[in-house]
Amino acid sequence: MFYHDKQLQYTVRVDTPSPLFAKMLQQAIGGVEGEIRVMMQYLFQAWGSRGPTKYRDLLMETGTEEIGHIEMLATAVAMNLEGSPASVQEEAAKANPMIAAVLGGMNPRHFLSTGMAATPEDANGTPFDASHVYASGNIMADMYANVTAEATGRVLATRLYEMTDDPGMKDMLRFLIARDTMHQQQWLAVIEELGGTQGLPIPNSFPQNQELQEVSYTFFSTSVEGVEPPTGRWSSGPSLDGKGVFTTRALKPMGQEPKLAPPIPQGHAQTEQMTGGLSGALKNVTNRVEDAVGNSRRPDHGQS
Amino acid sequence: MFYHDKQLQYTVRVDTPSPLFAKMLQQAIGGVEGEIRVMMQYLFQAWGSRGPTKYRDLLMETGTEEIGHIEMLATAVAMNLEGSPASVQEEAAKANPMIAAVLGGMNPRHFLSTGMAATPEDANGTPFDASHVYASGNIMADMYANVTAEATGRVLATRLYEMTDDPGMKDMLRFLIARDTMHQQQWLAVIEELGGTQGLPIPNSFPQNQELQEVSYTFFSTSVEGVEPPTGRWSSGPSLDGKGVFTTRALKPMGQEPKLAPPIPQGHAQTEQMTGGLSGALKNVTNRVEDAVGNSRRPDHGQS
Amino acid sequence: MFYHDKQLQYTVRVDTPSPLFAKMLQQAIGGVEGEIRVMMQYLFQAWGSRGPTKYRDLLMETGTEEIGHIEMLATAVAMNLEGSPASVQEEAAKANPMIAAVLGGMNPRHFLSTGMAATPEDANGTPFDASHVYASGNIMADMYANVTAEATGRVLATRLYEMTDDPGMKDMLRFLIARDTMHQQQWLAVIEELGGTQGLPIPNSFPQNQELQEVSYTFFSTSVEGVEPPTGRWSSGPSLDGKGVFTTRALKPMGQEPKLAPPIPQGHAQTEQMTGGLSGALKNVTNRVEDAVGNSRRPDHGQS
Amino acid sequence: MFYHDKQLQYTVRVDTPSPLFAKMLQQAIGGVEGEIRVMMQYLFQAWGSRGPTKYRDLLMETGTEEIGHIEMLATAVAMNLEGSPASVQEEAAKANPMIAAVLGGMNPRHFLSTGMAATPEDANGTPFDASHVYASGNIMADMYANVTAEATGRVLATRLYEMTDDPGMKDMLRFLIARDTMHQQQWLAVIEELGGTQGLPIPNSFPQNQELQEVSYTFFSTSVEGVEPPTGRWSSGPSLDGKGVFTTRALKPMGQEPKLAPPIPQGHAQTEQMTGGLSGALKNVTNRVEDAVGNSRRPDHGQS
Amino acid sequence: MFYHDKQLQYTVRVDTPSPLFAKMLQQAIGGVEGEIRVMMQYLFQAWGSRGPTKYRDLLMETGTEEIGHIEMLATAVAMNLEGSPASVQEEAAKANPMIAAVLGGMNPRHFLSTGMAATPEDANGTPFDASHVYASGNIMADMYANVTAEATGRVLATRLYEMTDDPGMKDMLRFLIARDTMHQQQWLAVIEELGGTQGLPIPNSFPQNQELQEVSYTFFSTSVEGVEPPTGRWSSGPSLDGKGVFTTRALKPMGQEPKLAPPIPQGHAQTEQMTGGLSGALKNVTNRVEDAVGNSRRPDHGQS
Amino acid sequence: MFYHDKQLQYTVRVDTPSPLFAKMLQQAIGGVEGEIRVMMQYLFQAWGSRGPTKYRDLLMETGTEEIGHIEMLATAVAMNLEGSPASVQEEAAKANPMIAAVLGGMNPRHFLSTGMAATPEDANGTPFDASHVYASGNIMADMYANVTAEATGRVLATRLYEMTDDPGMKDMLRFLIARDTMHQQQWLAVIEELGGTQGLPIPNSFPQNQELQEVSYTFFSTSVEGVEPPTGRWSSGPSLDGKGVFTTRALKPMGQEPKLAPPIPQGHAQTEQMTGGLSGALKNVTNRVEDAVGNSRRPDHGQS
Repeated sequence: MFYHDKQLQYTVRVDTPSPLFAKMLQQAIGGVEGEIRVMMQYLFQAWGSRGPTKYRDLLMETGTEEIGHIEMLATAVAMNLEGSPASVQEEAAKANPMIAAVLGGMNPRHFLSTGMAATPEDANGTPFDASHVYASGNIMADMYANVTAEATGRVLATRLYEMTDDPGMKDMLRFLIARDTMHQQQWLAVIEELGGTQGLPIPNSFPQNQELQEVSYTFFSTSVEGVEPPTGRWSSGPSLDGKGVFTTRALKPMGQEPKLAPPIPQGHAQTEQMTGGLSGALKNVTNRVEDAVGNSRRPDHGQS
Repeated sequence: MFYHDKQLQYTVRVDTPSPLFAKMLQQAIGGVEGEIRVMMQYLFQAWGSRGPTKYRDLLMETGTEEIGHIEMLATAVAMNLEGSPASVQEEAAKANPMIAAVLGGMNPRHFLSTGMAATPEDANGTPFDASHVYASGNIMADMYANVTAEATGRVLATRLYEMTDDPGMKDMLRFLIARDTMHQQQWLAVIEELGGTQGLPIPNSFPQNQELQEVSYTFFSTSVEGVEPPTGRWSSGPSLDGKGVFTTRALKPMGQEPKLAPPIPQGHAQTEQMTGGLSGALKNVTNRVEDAVGNSRRPDHGQS
Repeated sequence: MFYHDKQLQYTVRVDTPSPLFAKMLQQAIGGVEGEIRVMMQYLFQAWGSRGPTKYRDLLMETGTEEIGHIEMLATAVAMNLEGSPASVQEEAAKANPMIAAVLGGMNPRHFLSTGMAATPEDANGTPFDASHVYASGNIMADMYANVTAEATGRVLATRLYEMTDDPGMKDMLRFLIARDTMHQQQWLAVIEELGGTQGLPIPNSFPQNQELQEVSYTFFSTSVEGVEPPTGRWSSGPSLDGKGVFTTRALKPMGQEPKLAPPIPQGHAQTEQMTGGLSGALKNVTNRVEDAVGNSRRPDHGQS
Repeated sequence: MFYHDKQLQYTVRVDTPSPLFAKMLQQAIGGVEGEIRVMMQYLFQAWGSRGPTKYRDLLMETGTEEIGHIEMLATAVAMNLEGSPASVQEEAAKANPMIAAVLGGMNPRHFLSTGMAATPEDANGTPFDASHVYASGNIMADMYANVTAEATGRVLATRLYEMTDDPGMKDMLRFLIARDTMHQQQWLAVIEELGGTQGLPIPNSFPQNQELQEVSYTFFSTSVEGVEPPTGRWSSGPSLDGKGVFTTRALKPMGQEPKLAPPIPQGHAQTEQMTGGLSGALKNVTNRVEDAVGNSRRPDHGQS
Repeated sequence: MFYHDKQLQYTVRVDTPSPLFAKMLQQAIGGVEGEIRVMMQYLFQAWGSRGPTKYRDLLMETGTEEIGHIEMLATAVAMNLEGSPASVQEEAAKANPMIAAVLGGMNPRHFLSTGMAATPEDANGTPFDASHVYASGNIMADMYANVTAEATGRVLATRLYEMTDDPGMKDMLRFLIARDTMHQQQWLAVIEELGGTQGLPIPNSFPQNQELQEVSYTFFSTSVEGVEPPTGRWSSGPSLDGKGVFTTRALKPMGQEPKLAPPIPQGHAQTEQMTGGLSGALKNVTNRVEDAVGNSRRPDHGQS
Repeated sequence: MFYHDKQLQYTVRVDTPSPLFAKMLQQAIGGVEGEIRVMMQYLFQAWGSRGPTKYRDLLMETGTEEIGHIEMLATAVAMNLEGSPASVQEEAAKANPMIAAVLGGMNPRHFLSTGMAATPEDANGTPFDASHVYASGNIMADMYANVTAEATGRVLATRLYEMTDDPGMKDMLRFLIARDTMHQQQWLAVIEELGGTQGLPIPNSFPQNQELQEVSYTFFSTSVEGVEPPTGRWSSGPSLDGKGVFTTRALKPMGQEPKLAPPIPQGHAQTEQMTGGLSGALKNVTNRVEDAVGNSRRPDHGQS
């Protein structure tokens, strides 16, 4: 359950309104790196949290803070739109074609749809789409998603910081960048608490002897022959989880050439596709088994 | 530039076709945790890669492998749809209402739109949307996005593994789970090479003295008064990056109550909204400055 | 700025978990009639509010309450998924084909993507899309949008109430239905305060003498000849705003047959489309003016 | 079934083509306040209409008129694109960088995808998405949706009117604004016929004694302590429907702190999340009942 | 401008209502192969039509017919939902778990959102998205798009025909399949009028000597070495347009290995990515030119 | 399974970087006419291919080539963004307002989200949506979809060619236009192999005597009375498939006026909609049958 305060978490001040900057700020509201996303991501992770209560609490605490960040940014957009070209007198616009040009770069919906206010969209006017809310039910996977969100969010905030000379906007962004620092740190802290990057692959509850371990630590190079695959921490030596040894191998097919059954009559493919009929379908099943079995026997071909 | 091989990377075999499992497999093709996403994410990261060439090469190598994973899964969907209820004789369907019920659980587009083949959609039939392709231009942010993708992808694959008893499908999933292990490991290896989780906040190229450092390592609790905030690695002690000390504080407003200017006449709000007019707008600007300045003076209130 | 309470606004209790009902409840979370929509709609209206402060405050108060409604519903989904078919032992599923059938009706992402928790999607798994957040900058238009949201939301809640026999779920819905009652009432109260349904057309700040008043109160019937148009409060008598008199008229064209200029060469239409060339373009402009002028002279035709 | 007339409903004339205005007009075609939306909304409401025939007829009449409004606007877009920068000679563009700048503000798809014609998108190029078609099966809810659509549509049309000096475009908009006046009036007339704003909450077929009436007319303030909630028609006095009395109350939790069962093994959460196991699940059910029961006993806490 | 008739274009009759079939029919309403798409596609092509008037008229004629097809299908959905499980008495549902299972396969929004009526969505509940409206401004490209729409539409209709035993539904589909026959034929007739499949490549207004003609009729095989590329009409002999001769060649790179400049400082990549700095950027430009020039000199490599 | 080559299929060179052209090029990457679409369309058609193997092989060959086209375009976008306004020194931007204006026309996400690299979006920043991947299971329908894709793709490429003076970009486009020529030709070649445009309507496996043949070759004019329908190859003479004769007829209703049953009580329509109750529902069924039967008897009305 939630409460609100009329005051903002941090001061929002715009010294020189800029409708172009208003458009840019939208990315931090409704973009995939933005605040609506983290707000919903942390809250949905909390609401579905199964496991130690403290992580649920942690997610709820920060998810709630993020609602206030959307509020700050929406306020900043509204303030940047005050005094914008669409609100200046027509004579000015006619006398100065520059104004019209800038107007062309403004988000049209900032005037047409909201009368000078923010929308839950990104800088291109693409509405926020909640499929970006990652909440997998696996806490480690979710923590990496959260670090990603705060890392891309902080990158975005520093780019916005570079785009403006407005002291008020720079001050607000200094605050948001610092909060992104903390939020990166806190999700990394949870990762550390839960075993860090050296733990078993995520999810650690799946017994590794059920995966095909002969390819669990193999770097497959898909380059054409004669090109050296890139080397680094991933190409040789012990794996990070200490459970295997990295090797590098050129990719070669381990599977068959797929053969699907002919189309079923009710699906109304072209008759030219259906020469096999039912007997073809049966034949196909036979082939498929033979292919699968025979696969180890077939001569090595591929790119070499 | 790309080449292909007619054979699959690993054998795909379906012993007992199941249209319901075909529907589930779609999540691994077109879901946010799926293979279309990682394929496009790694390739777009590679194509926009600025910096050491070896990371570009690494991304290209693995992005190319992922195309073949989509191929394996699309083949598995098509094979699971062979012998499905929509293809059995009508009499059977009439005699056995169960078949009709199962048919109801099938993805309708697997028959109606493709004639028994895969679509680039998730298990609910939501088409893949390329806004899920994260390529930020910051390699650390991207690597965390990649670990996230492989972690949620492996979680998904293990859940699919639990849902089927089909030996062929289990074998294919054993392969894909192992590849997800390697891909998690390799992106973590890049993170380690670039300084690991103990490095500066991402992006490390932004000078931290430009952020509002007094809140860079502060955990803000947004709980109502009287509730203890959750404690852990994030709540006290040195920060992970070694640049600060974690503290915990109850959230209190540091900003003003926002006051926007009245609507501009051309925006055609209701007249009841526009009592202030132009003088109001001027007054607003004055207020805003006063508010911002006076903010430090205002008595502490909030929730307490 | 926002705070939260660990306790829910109202008790959420599930006596007999039902994954099918979990799927249905998603409509109240992420559907167009759902709670994410009203939460974001009221908050964005508040954050962009220009005009009397009390309406901004009112929107903020209720927008904040709605976050807690999402929380209640997300909790209800998670609880309905406990004990669901995907979590029962495999033997049971094999022995009882009914379980498999029901499993087919479950939202697959409730298992595959979240491990038994809610998503920000509707009952068909379509992610919430923030273009549904209406915040026009005109307070009357917004209030009608809000009444609509609460009216369709209450209709949805009563339908969910009919679909379940679970006492816990019925109790939670009784609460939500009552809140929808209040929220309908409160937005209607704002409409009444601002002049009610008898006021000028929205927006009331546009001078009506600038609209083409000869068609401002005319009901145009688009039926084929010989069919009586429907009659009611809208077809004759004084208009609701008292500014006009309703009349009914058969639709007849008042405009020209449009003639567009030929394609520009750079647009690479087929050559067969471009016989006119530049002279055609000039001719077109002439035609267009003649058409517009001549329109009043042309004999009445149309459908009669 | 439908027929068409080659002539437009009203004259569309463009005196000075403007690709920027063409872009703006798209909001009235494919925006959420636009004509595709009302066309489809009224027609789908009509096609699913259950109840008095006259409302079905009314919806069909006006839905049909709206198709012609899309036609007018699409024609206006095409005419505004004639003579646009992309069609002027290259020399001009080079000599006058202003042209290039304006070109930058044009909708690129107006040239690239259509060769100078309208698209079913909004002013930002976001395609129309049919989830905006509200047709709830409850006629009152639908009528409020229709008033909303015409109110936001008329606000949009008046803003477009302010953005242009073109006499032809202003004349067309005068017509469309007048039609929006009539359509607002006619849907309000249906609301009046069906009982007006003083009727029972929508849907009026749900017995109010089944809702939790103690909160049906209560305004919950979610403000932090010490802040006065906004007062108005909604905060005290008789409710609009005459069935209750408005009261105002500070929000306090009436529900429990939610406790979900531990993750099921098949969902492959991290092992650190699964300490409870099956016994934990059982324990959880017990807890939940106790919590629900004990809720009335627990001491009041919260924000106070 | 448009008119309507209360009667349907063809009789819609449902003998045995089926909510599952109602769900399937949605694909023909709001699916990518459905009627909303063709309706909007033909009308937008007509409204943007530049060139011979008769094609504009033709598109308008058929676009108008399609509105009536949506009406027929929406009516069929509503009729199939009458008598559906959600409307049967609760006792029946409890006594017969089959009903509940079938209910699970129903489109939930058919009850929750519309109260038993059609939506503008496909069979999976994905809303129609107007980006599927192809109107390129090139009449030949558009005619192929129209043939595609009618071909996939007729395939869909025949599949729906196979899924139902209801005489009324079969009769309606017989009508729609026949109309799809005619519409395929008529768009093919326009293609024939405009030169048929033997004409110049679309668009025929682009001078072919400006394209890189050495690869205009070359089939590139992307197979690994040693695999025979598929042969057919496309692999040798004269091209269809009579302007060239088909040849088949193994794909080899004709371009350089791309080298992008290092990141700009304002973009805040990781410092590890930015070793090159400004001098690196200059060096990069030099390299790029050298690469492009040197490309012809480099030894043949690739897959062999 | 797939391999890659570090070199591009064809040289990509940018002589004068232009962020505006970078924005335009996005249409060829992620637009509906773009390369992501054809890549995925051909590959999904191949992976679901049932019927002669050579068509599967053909689709796989070309689908693989298209991945390399995305790579070329993504490289071209990244190169066009080098030296762009966002990367020039601030002083320059201030001194030259033109730069700011151009910056306004740039895709903001090219800086904010990617740090100067391509995204999988169109020129308006709308993310690619995989519902555009047509793979119907009917090879003729798919081939027409492929011709459409290559035709609209070539139209787009020629328009991009017209928009740039950059020699490098013109050279790259010359290559892509030529490839579009070949790909159009090859899909037309498959159509010819399978019977060409003179074959039976698609799908040719549906027996035409099951469709309502009396309207299979009839052009219905939906114009109001007195307007001559357009004449051409489609309006008279033998049909293209040789199975019928084209005729032209004015559209008249062949169906009933639809009457739906009253709302079910559980759907909570307004009480004013539910006068009929259960008896009404029964009456409705009766009416519907009578209407359907009586339809042939009813006097001719309609528009005349």
